Amino acid sequence: MSSSQLIRVAVAGASGYAGGEVLRLLAAHPFVEIGALTAHTNAGSSLGEVQPHLRGLAHRILEPTTPDALRGHDVVVLGLPHGASGQVAAQLPDDVLVVDLGADHRLESASDWEQFYGSTHAGTWPYGLPELIHAEAPGVDVATAARQRDKLPGTRRIAVPGCNVTAVTLGLQPGVAAGVIETGDIVAVLANGYSGAGKALKPHLLASEALGAAQPYAVGGTHRHIPEIQQNLRVAGAPQVTISFTPTLVPMARGILATATAPLVKGVDPEQVRAAWEAAYAEEPFVHLLPEGQWPSTAMTLGANTACVQVAVDAAARRVVTVTAIDNLVKGTAGAAVQSMNLALGLRETAGLITEGVAP
Amino acid sequence: MSSSQLIRVAVAGASGYAGGEVLRLLAAHPFVEIGALTAHTNAGSSLGEVQPHLRGLAHRILEPTTPDALRGHDVVVLGLPHGASGQVAAQLPDDVLVVDLGADHRLESASDWEQFYGSTHAGTWPYGLPELIHAEAPGVDVATAARQRDKLPGTRRIAVPGCNVTAVTLGLQPGVAAGVIETGDIVAVLANGYSGAGKALKPHLLASEALGAAQPYAVGGTHRHIPEIQQNLRVAGAPQVTISFTPTLVPMARGILATATAPLVKGVDPEQVRAAWEAAYAEEPFVHLLPEGQWPSTAMTLGANTACVQVAVDAAARRVVTVTAIDNLVKGTAGAAVQSMNLALGLRETAGLITEGVAP
Amino acid sequence: MSSSQLIRVAVAGASGYAGGEVLRLLAAHPFVEIGALTAHTNAGSSLGEVQPHLRGLAHRILEPTTPDALRGHDVVVLGLPHGASGQVAAQLPDDVLVVDLGADHRLESASDWEQFYGSTHAGTWPYGLPELIHAEAPGVDVATAARQRDKLPGTRRIAVPGCNVTAVTLGLQPGVAAGVIETGDIVAVLANGYSGAGKALKPHLLASEALGAAQPYAVGGTHRHIPEIQQNLRVAGAPQVTISFTPTLVPMARGILATATAPLVKGVDPEQVRAAWEAAYAEEPFVHLLPEGQWPSTAMTLGANTACVQVAVDAAARRVVTVTAIDNLVKGTAGAAVQSMNLALGLRETAGLITEGVAP
Amino acid sequence: MSSSQLIRVAVAGASGYAGGEVLRLLAAHPFVEIGALTAHTNAGSSLGEVQPHLRGLAHRILEPTTPDALRGHDVVVLGLPHGASGQVAAQLPDDVLVVDLGADHRLESASDWEQFYGSTHAGTWPYGLPELIHAEAPGVDVATAARQRDKLPGTRRIAVPGCNVTAVTLGLQPGVAAGVIETGDIVAVLANGYSGAGKALKPHLLASEALGAAQPYAVGGTHRHIPEIQQNLRVAGAPQVTISFTPTLVPMARGILATATAPLVKGVDPEQVRAAWEAAYAEEPFVHLLPEGQWPSTAMTLGANTACVQVAVDAAARRVVTVTAIDNLVKGTAGAAVQSMNLALGLRETAGLITEGVAP
Repeated sequence: MSSSQLIRVAVAGASGYAGGEVLRLLAAHPFVEIGALTAHTNAGSSLGEVQPHLRGLAHRILEPTTPDALRGHDVVVLGLPHGASGQVAAQLPDDVLVVDLGADHRLESASDWEQFYGSTHAGTWPYGLPELIHAEAPGVDVATAARQRDKLPGTRRIAVPGCNVTAVTLGLQPGVAAGVIETGDIVAVLANGYSGAGKALKPHLLASEALGAAQPYAVGGTHRHIPEIQQNLRVAGAPQVTISFTPTLVPMARGILATATAPLVKGVDPEQVRAAWEAAYAEEPFVHLLPEGQWPSTAMTLGANTACVQVAVDAAARRVVTVTAIDNLVKGTAGAAVQSMNLALGLRETAGLITEGVAP
Repeated sequence: MSSSQLIRVAVAGASGYAGGEVLRLLAAHPFVEIGALTAHTNAGSSLGEVQPHLRGLAHRILEPTTPDALRGHDVVVLGLPHGASGQVAAQLPDDVLVVDLGADHRLESASDWEQFYGSTHAGTWPYGLPELIHAEAPGVDVATAARQRDKLPGTRRIAVPGCNVTAVTLGLQPGVAAGVIETGDIVAVLANGYSGAGKALKPHLLASEALGAAQPYAVGGTHRHIPEIQQNLRVAGAPQVTISFTPTLVPMARGILATATAPLVKGVDPEQVRAAWEAAYAEEPFVHLLPEGQWPSTAMTLGANTACVQVAVDAAARRVVTVTAIDNLVKGTAGAAVQSMNLALGLRETAGLITEGVAP
Repeated sequence: MSSSQLIRVAVAGASGYAGGEVLRLLAAHPFVEIGALTAHTNAGSSLGEVQPHLRGLAHRILEPTTPDALRGHDVVVLGLPHGASGQVAAQLPDDVLVVDLGADHRLESASDWEQFYGSTHAGTWPYGLPELIHAEAPGVDVATAARQRDKLPGTRRIAVPGCNVTAVTLGLQPGVAAGVIETGDIVAVLANGYSGAGKALKPHLLASEALGAAQPYAVGGTHRHIPEIQQNLRVAGAPQVTISFTPTLVPMARGILATATAPLVKGVDPEQVRAAWEAAYAEEPFVHLLPEGQWPSTAMTLGANTACVQVAVDAAARRVVTVTAIDNLVKGTAGAAVQSMNLALGLRETAGLITEGVAP
Repeated sequence: MSSSQLIRVAVAGASGYAGGEVLRLLAAHPFVEIGALTAHTNAGSSLGEVQPHLRGLAHRILEPTTPDALRGHDVVVLGLPHGASGQVAAQLPDDVLVVDLGADHRLESASDWEQFYGSTHAGTWPYGLPELIHAEAPGVDVATAARQRDKLPGTRRIAVPGCNVTAVTLGLQPGVAAGVIETGDIVAVLANGYSGAGKALKPHLLASEALGAAQPYAVGGTHRHIPEIQQNLRVAGAPQVTISFTPTLVPMARGILATATAPLVKGVDPEQVRAAWEAAYAEEPFVHLLPEGQWPSTAMTLGANTACVQVAVDAAARRVVTVTAIDNLVKGTAGAAVQSMNLALGLRETAGLITEGVAP
């Protein structure tokens, strides 16, 4: 591909953690040229002042986020606060690929949106989780079932999933689609790195509060990612989904370790369970079922577009336990954006993405 | 109390994390004189070489763990590997108070012991969780129900609970005793500091592996604390207990944040739920139900004998969610030992113990 | 001591880290009753909302910081931003013991104050570092030299030292007083926990920025603690002090590890060096020279009023290297305040203070 | 470059941290094919068992480290314990490029080797720090002075520098070569991540000991990197080098923040100082002098082959202060190896290497 054929990508919200991570990945993408970088309060600064780890782009100047600044690109990535992307997106041409890292266009149900976000729904865009299994009902052949990646080629609008949602969905969907777990009483508890909370200046996000401490947030059914998980598992075949969901902040900058458990369908044996997960992920480039007995650590995925998954049957508890590790900013956000962008534009799905984590 | 009346306490296993923490607490105990300190491979070293934070005891020399070394004390605390305390305890006189920090004497069921520990059961001792509620069946008046502390005065043998067990038991038992939660499908996921794993030299316990990472262990119903939690909740009134239990190591030296959830009994409303927890802990010196809306952080309890508990009803999930924070080495181990020792010896229950955590 | 004889202490700035730590220590002080707690923006809140680790004081309500609120106490501790304590202190009666945790009254030189703080000097108070050695010139008998503690009995004003200052001063002063190190070219580099920066909401203090990272600040001779270190070492006998001082933030909530090095005076041998440090600290309850070959870790001092010091001679570099570990909030701030308060009021110097750190 | 032209690289010591990092970088290298992976105690395991973050190589089996296993490659990278690479290297053919990550072949002085390592010197190889400035004496034109990269094309043996050495050398060498700093009294104090200590199972490397703590090691002139720093600064023009060097472990997995300070040559002004650093690094792809006032954080360099450097003049202390941040496993080890390999083989120096750090 010659230089003149490079895809020109603008990033709005380039000073935030999500925007910065998209830039980190795009800087290594063989088919991309980075165009305009825009910001809100940081407009006028150099990128080096706010994202000093992006050495190759340090001299770039952040422009204000306006339709003019974003004009003339093949792709526009929106790393804006929830509720802000709808308005910006509405001003962009239909033939530009718009990739929204925010929540605005993820949910299909306007009433879910209104209940959890409290504003008017901006509409639904194709969902940027290529590995999402599509099943009409539980019990399909997981290996051959359709995936969300089939829906993405040619689209010009992508809603990137929430990071917690990706971890829980990837952990549970094989069992849902295969019909080996029940979805009426799922429980998920997550260990979350702080970058998921963004750069907001809030007391509980200070280093002094975080170091050496674990603390939950959005407990008791209030987290905004709940309806999105339910939506995904319904796509994967669940007739109905009930989930207790609790994220907990732990002292790491990045990473999600999601422990998600669901009742085992009566009569199913452990081999059937493992077979469902194997079938689901055998061919996936970025979702890896670990060998039996090896459990995921977030360290395996740091900086990489990988999800590491393990599953076990707790016979005494009559539950299937899954643990999924991802980097919330990569497979949970920016990597999913690039992977979906690749599919939308007809590029190799893995272009510019890596599976090797930075460890230790 | 004159010096001649001080209680003389020996600590076996003084070079380990649990033994060291007992010494830290005893050093501040107004009625205690620290006697012999014994160790295994570290015998012959000064305490300052292996526990340099215990400045006031730095010059003390560690003796080998023998009946002779432990003779002549009012209290002997055993901080030994699981399976080792039974043998040492058998050699100690009946009138000495023996406090076992290990698992050997916790379980009432020999078959549970054999299934989870794989050796011969050493017998059952009075259980060192003073706040444990005793109820014949669900639905008792939680405020007035008997507590385990009633069983401890005069005893000369105490089995200190497992740290995870304490966190999960304190989180759930009010609802069990009051009959507002069901115990047939409990799910608990814990964020754990590394000191719970002891000083063993294992690769996954290295700082390089731990820093920036979250990793689970003993997943799928294999953790040895499961039968102990079940035993406790049966004491608290549950006819039968089924639990899915997953601990996850997160990058902190100390602390347990236990998220434990159980199905809400049909027809129970949120006020009844909160009332049960309030009734259970209103008079407890060390277990604090936080004000509504404030969630526990392990930072609140660092170094203190406190458990901070919060409870919420997730109506959509039809589950009660509890979060409990403790310091695994204090309320989870050494603090429980001192608190129970105080009760056994007829001292003020709170002597030598504090509720103020070290934060930030 | 009967309840009517308890010393009544008010804390202004009770919602900050320094104020909170004073309260943690005072809550365990046998001769103290905690009186008014005041705050600025948090006035009206309960202490439990802003300092939830202080369980025993959780129900206390924060009042606005006014002379009225602070009236009627034996002691008033000021945990206020630099530049604010001067004004509040001026409104307090002369016979009340005022302990200033801030910088306002530490420096003797008004011009140093103006150069480094940029405002008008509030005046100089007796300095709250009891271990500070007084020597007219280098070469005194360190064991018998006067200490700052001799100046504190009866005083009604105390300026608590800066935390970095305490670490560097304790590390170097034995060599200064004994005349075995030169003070014309000191270099100190510190590893600092984040709580030293307070609760200010600044981007570089966010957990996401701190976790996994080390970053310096106030490099190149700009840090405000420089003139205070120079002042102390002059008290310890140095004719003149030149110091290069660099603090670096590392991912821990508390703790200072100060590596301070100074040229060895020609002809001095290693035994003389060690002898100076031994003489200086042999009788100190809170400053511990470790056995040869054992180096301080901040973990030894967490939550305790201890400083751990080690010294070595680097013959090839012709420099003495000292490493000092303290808890910045205890020996570095609140512990020094309580220790100095004890001396001022004629109490046992160690009352309410411990030397056992919380480790691991 | 067609597949048949790929460079075939074997890695001995593939189960260690250094070996694993080389593999992470080589997996992304466009001109490399990864050949044999060898290990010692882990021989027979799959790479996925010991380096589970290297997803694409997880199925590879580790062979024992023998000449046979290493035969038939264009490049052999040795990630072996100090003292072990000499012997293995001696068995490899002369026309194979051998890149030694260990210390064995770094020092030119056999007596330095013997003094600091206590064994027989294995000989000296071309040094793998391409940015090292060569100057006969202080005061050269830094911009045009020779660099170590000029020595590497065509070589078949490379000694990769020590990680601390790289940080200190890059921080100071511009001032040495330009003649604006004196080298007779350098002081360097480093904040170090734990991976620099390798995977050895030692008590002070346990997570429980590391979390929340800072601790020094090898204090007082004993660290083995001292003669290597001296050697480098002599190459950069220093007639003689005296250095006080203290590394301190801080709670992060990776990263070095090196604060290195040296006396300012009399009469030199701050502009001359900055000019020297700007001239030294203006054209360097991996060493970046930050804009004035911005200080390095190790977070800027995590996972990247970048060194971020800043310099300031402390006029009062008459010292130049430099701070350098690198990832000890990348620019400090594996990145330096790949960069030097590229030069030796005539590839683009930057092939397979990135400058964008993983942050936050």
